[in-house]
Amino acid sequence: MLDDPILFPRHGGALAAASERHGVAVGGWLDLSTGINSHPYPVLDGLETELHRLPDPAELATLTEVARDAYGAQRNVAVTAVPGTDLALRLLPLLAPPGPVTILGPTYSGHAEAWRDGGRDVRVAKALDAISADSRVVVVVNPNNPDGRRLTPGALLAMAARLATVGGLLVVDEAFADLEPEGSVLPHLAGEPIVVLRSFGKFYGLAGLRLGFALGDADVIARLGRLVGDWPVSGTAIRLGRRALADTDWQATARARLRSGRERLVGILTAAGLGIAGGTDLFQLAVAPDAVSLHESLARQGVWTRIFDDQPGRIRFGLPADDQFDRLAAALPEAR
Amino acid sequence: MLDDPILFPRHGGALAAASERHGVAVGGWLDLSTGINSHPYPVLDGLETELHRLPDPAELATLTEVARDAYGAQRNVAVTAVPGTDLALRLLPLLAPPGPVTILGPTYSGHAEAWRDGGRDVRVAKALDAISADSRVVVVVNPNNPDGRRLTPGALLAMAARLATVGGLLVVDEAFADLEPEGSVLPHLAGEPIVVLRSFGKFYGLAGLRLGFALGDADVIARLGRLVGDWPVSGTAIRLGRRALADTDWQATARARLRSGRERLVGILTAAGLGIAGGTDLFQLAVAPDAVSLHESLARQGVWTRIFDDQPGRIRFGLPADDQFDRLAAALPEAR
Repeated sequence: MLDDPILFPRHGGALAAASERHGVAVGGWLDLSTGINSHPYPVLDGLETELHRLPDPAELATLTEVARDAYGAQRNVAVTAVPGTDLALRLLPLLAPPGPVTILGPTYSGHAEAWRDGGRDVRVAKALDAISADSRVVVVVNPNNPDGRRLTPGALLAMAARLATVGGLLVVDEAFADLEPEGSVLPHLAGEPIVVLRSFGKFYGLAGLRLGFALGDADVIARLGRLVGDWPVSGTAIRLGRRALADTDWQATARARLRSGRERLVGILTAAGLGIAGGTDLFQLAVAPDAVSLHESLARQGVWTRIFDDQPGRIRFGLPADDQFDRLAAALPEAR
Repeated sequence: MLDDPILFPRHGGALAAASERHGVAVGGWLDLSTGINSHPYPVLDGLETELHRLPDPAELATLTEVARDAYGAQRNVAVTAVPGTDLALRLLPLLAPPGPVTILGPTYSGHAEAWRDGGRDVRVAKALDAISADSRVVVVVNPNNPDGRRLTPGALLAMAARLATVGGLLVVDEAFADLEPEGSVLPHLAGEPIVVLRSFGKFYGLAGLRLGFALGDADVIARLGRLVGDWPVSGTAIRLGRRALADTDWQATARARLRSGRERLVGILTAAGLGIAGGTDLFQLAVAPDAVSLHESLARQGVWTRIFDDQPGRIRFGLPADDQFDRLAAALPEAR
């Protein structure tokens, strides 16, 4: 069962395969399998003109400057735009110092995949103080997916200081940090061997755009930038990214909306008798001894959630769109 | 002068820097510095919905199948989509067999950059029979940019057979092969150590979309696919790519239009006293002993062309849009 690729897919989404298994039309799903904002940043008209020509290096430079400011990093922190942080994290094993890698887990499976593909000895630790002393690279998702575990900037800087003494590198995947920017390590960076990944698609609800950023360690970021070349992201991504990252009004409204949505989701899950193991304002990880059958029963009702082969008894719910909470609330009692 | 980054930029486009140097408004240029179709594949409405969710792996799989068919490769040829072939060619040094690299040149500068960044010993050969016998990797752009030099599929297969005996790899960049598909090596692939790069943005006039494909050698393509991950290209790229690559009517019309446009461009260049060194239906390389001053004089009139530090006395003109030929025809006598 653990190797069933539809029950335990590599990622959320993948609705075509789920549709075939569960007899639900592709357009009929309430897709709660990802942590992507259902109320996206508005995509205005005229974007198609950005598709015709090659993006100008000057526009890309502006985008990365806007991103650095939006994320609160100092002006001397290196930054490069990438076509999604998933691609960036897969390139990091080619750029990071050699040696054993410890991932704080369980977490997003792409990290372990990437480092194993890169031929690394990969260990998983449950806490920072359980990381073996010979680790040259440490990978932390913060806040963590799927359980929302948070580490303070101070704890991360201390880990980076330890890694600096052995020529190591700390990778901090801040895919969900837009929801709680006060927890980001980026404003504190001052030359430590840290690479921070920031996803654009999740908070801004534009996952199909393929945009993200890598910031921090000057040498690693410079080499990553050369690897992805002079046109790493689309013209549409440059234009939307520049606008959205500077739009602090929209960001504040979206944060408040997601926060109250999370409270509503927790209420629905609790009312259905599920405990909450953790989460962020874009997803909640619920405790359910019958997670597999709950996931499948919800799927038959067209509600697509995620369960994890390394976390039995847990089921993750992405935040529904405002008009979809009732559908989830109605499906849960049916499913249990 | 050879290290002047505006006179000899890394790539075409980059109009922001050119505008500052020459006092031309960014929107006022006739940009002939790239080889991108000025009459793009139509971008219909509704594409913004593709930006919101993560592209489904099933949709990506359909795109790569459509691409393989469109390019005439057999069904058993491996293929992966990439966010632009420029990114793919920069990753190839990490995936190809070790050893010296020979590039058939002069050609697109990104190839040499990428292999040098990868720590390779890079040589440039002027012809296939001048390639040193110890080369493990050979890189050919076919048709070549900027001079349009063409190699037959048979010559490329013979080179691949030679490389196969030493565990080597042949990289064929077919960025401009859509214009003359009968010259592609892809329909002839049968297990040779060949990786072919196909650009989507040039022929379809959608360079800002960031879409391309790598096809061929099963091992290299599989590892490239894992490196770029499960969401290598945007939802917009998947939707437009699937449609455009299967639209043989549009392709035939575009080829005919570009062919007659090339004839018109050759006529204008010849009337201005320039010789033709070669080219494709998307650009022409002209012979001009005064290439630098001609380039700068055209720039002052808002016409942006390319000159090359490794090809003195040559100037490259991209194909103007149908309603822009007259502007070029008027600017050339002024410039000479």
